[in-house]
Amino acid sequence: MSAGALNFVRRIPEGEDRERLTCADCGFVAYENPKIVTGSVVVQDGKVLLCRRAIEPRRGFWTIPAGYMELNETVEEAARREAREEACAEIAIEGILALYSIARIGQVQVLFRAHLAMPGFAAGPESLEVRLFDWDEIPWPDLAFPSVHWVLKAWRELGDRPLGAPVTNPPEDPRGTSRMREQGA
Amino acid sequence: MSAGALNFVRRIPEGEDRERLTCADCGFVAYENPKIVTGSVVVQDGKVLLCRRAIEPRRGFWTIPAGYMELNETVEEAARREAREEACAEIAIEGILALYSIARIGQVQVLFRAHLAMPGFAAGPESLEVRLFDWDEIPWPDLAFPSVHWVLKAWRELGDRPLGAPVTNPPEDPRGTSRMREQGA
Repeated sequence: MSAGALNFVRRIPEGEDRERLTCADCGFVAYENPKIVTGSVVVQDGKVLLCRRAIEPRRGFWTIPAGYMELNETVEEAARREAREEACAEIAIEGILALYSIARIGQVQVLFRAHLAMPGFAAGPESLEVRLFDWDEIPWPDLAFPSVHWVLKAWRELGDRPLGAPVTNPPEDPRGTSRMREQGA
Repeated sequence: MSAGALNFVRRIPEGEDRERLTCADCGFVAYENPKIVTGSVVVQDGKVLLCRRAIEPRRGFWTIPAGYMELNETVEEAARREAREEACAEIAIEGILALYSIARIGQVQVLFRAHLAMPGFAAGPESLEVRLFDWDEIPWPDLAFPSVHWVLKAWRELGDRPLGAPVTNPPEDPRGTSRMREQGA
């Protein structure tokens, strides 16, 4: 599959029950499955690190450092890479704070609680601005995604207590179907 | 992308840092990211439900009901679907028991603790045989994958206690690189 061109069409492969992107020449099936987003609520002196997005979707809105996991890394490695890329921050991961399914867009989000492993952060190429926010300063109307709301609330509710069972989707959105504008704010 | 054929080559898209499967005609990028496997340690009267695989890889070996998550479902829905498909079992999910990264093959495994929601199970089309095992009966040399070992041990260690922070990769394999035959067994 790594050499030459592929000629993809949608068809149901033998023995399967749904259409897959399949090479009409060689039969290779490019399975389309949900993707994993990993990220972290990075805490320093009780404040949380947020990044203002320099890229679409939701350019100009605030989010935690997070992004798509790549091949050949673990979820923890991916979360550390995202903090490095988006916030020029080296983080120490404490554990899993939340695991959300966003079925509408085929995502599973594995979100950690972490802290800065060394002082210092700055806007990476995908961020316009990076800063620490006190709880009362969090720009709720300008958060990028519903799950940023969810995970910041989960972080606040847990406080300094040890991590337990991960938080999952909130009762009002068990499948991850809400869009940002439906959340008000 | 849903109509017509695509002509894929590997190239580095503008603004990216690694090769992606890209349509030479329209520029569509088929991102290849890790896939999510969901499954469950299904418990009934202290025994655990295992399936003997009817399909490759590891045909004839035993595993928990688990498989690739599909688009348009949550992790919990995927785990229930897999139990239905592989073991004709309706399960009630208690929570996340383990989250493993298997970097060698681009997988993240989200594994639940669950119990039968109603009596009865049977081999589905992907299983040769399905049965409940006491701890002392588990066919360790005939388990399909390292993570089946890991999660069964995690289940045993937790006992009947409430679920807490999920177990992650064992210290001897933090990135999920071991193969079955290297584990002895």
